[in-house]
Amino acid sequence: MIGKEQYEAAVDRAVNMMADAGIVITPEERTRFEVADFGLNELEKTGLEVLTDVNTDRVCAKEIVMFPRQTCPEHWHPTKGTKLGKEDTFRCRWGTVYLYVPGKATQNPGALPPKGSEAHYTVMHEISMRPVEQYTLLPDTKRWFQSGGEGAIVSEFSTRSTDDEDMFSDPRIKRASEVT
Amino acid sequence: MIGKEQYEAAVDRAVNMMADAGIVITPEERTRFEVADFGLNELEKTGLEVLTDVNTDRVCAKEIVMFPRQTCPEHWHPTKGTKLGKEDTFRCRWGTVYLYVPGKATQNPGALPPKGSEAHYTVMHEISMRPVEQYTLLPDTKRWFQSGGEGAIVSEFSTRSTDDEDMFSDPRIKRASEVT
Repeated sequence: MIGKEQYEAAVDRAVNMMADAGIVITPEERTRFEVADFGLNELEKTGLEVLTDVNTDRVCAKEIVMFPRQTCPEHWHPTKGTKLGKEDTFRCRWGTVYLYVPGKATQNPGALPPKGSEAHYTVMHEISMRPVEQYTLLPDTKRWFQSGGEGAIVSEFSTRSTDDEDMFSDPRIKRASEVT
Repeated sequence: MIGKEQYEAAVDRAVNMMADAGIVITPEERTRFEVADFGLNELEKTGLEVLTDVNTDRVCAKEIVMFPRQTCPEHWHPTKGTKLGKEDTFRCRWGTVYLYVPGKATQNPGALPPKGSEAHYTVMHEISMRPVEQYTLLPDTKRWFQSGGEGAIVSEFSTRSTDDEDMFSDPRIKRASEVT
């Protein structure tokens, strides 16, 4: 649950970070910035600020802003029957992102799961991304990511986004934001 | 046909325009910049400079650089049987782009077809795009576009790109670049 004041402050901060990185958005887009705290009520630690540029039946593009050391919790995009799950490509535009995927656990990783939530983080193979490195994630792949100490801005190119179908490792998580 | 020197000069110019607009690319990406003159041998008038960020079976993202008043000639992405043609979203990042699509011809348009090629330009309804306006084109939709006097940079989000399947109104056009 996010209060209206917290929502506005988060959007201001995200839009300012984008402006500093030279990424322009329209006034209309500003009004539909999403601030997601995943229902955990600890936005600074676990959350994302997201602008969806376009989301059609076939293609989606988003700009994701992460405050310093903010974490997107572990999740995946499930295939359902013959309908393939969402495929994502992340392209780091600014800052540093530590992305974790299945594979051998990385020694001395750049990020650690948020304190108190470690049990819900299971994939520990690190892909470290600086501008403008990118990485493509196939459907059904568990992943979580955290920004470095400056925060980060990431462009996401994907198939249609249906956030409400996302599966999370942490059963406490609610994907839909509740702004009150 | 593009000479190697012309290719290198065009890439330099495109990469510099991106840098001025704050859009970073990797050294590896620089080496695979595409310069397309569509076989017309008049790159300044008819051509595109294109970097493909990613192109999987499902999703493609490109950065398109246009020199001042450069035109991408009229074309469309055909549906073949049950396989839908490519769907594109253009997002203007820098400069001005005049996009033409089917519909009522725009009076006093911002751009005119390249001289000598007018016969191969048939859609004249203008969508004028400044940063960061965007427009989604469905498959099978004829379109052409030209940058304004400063040039333009456009991000394209789309389904899989298969340039060799593009259909052009001008029968002289060859989509594949020949760099000699």
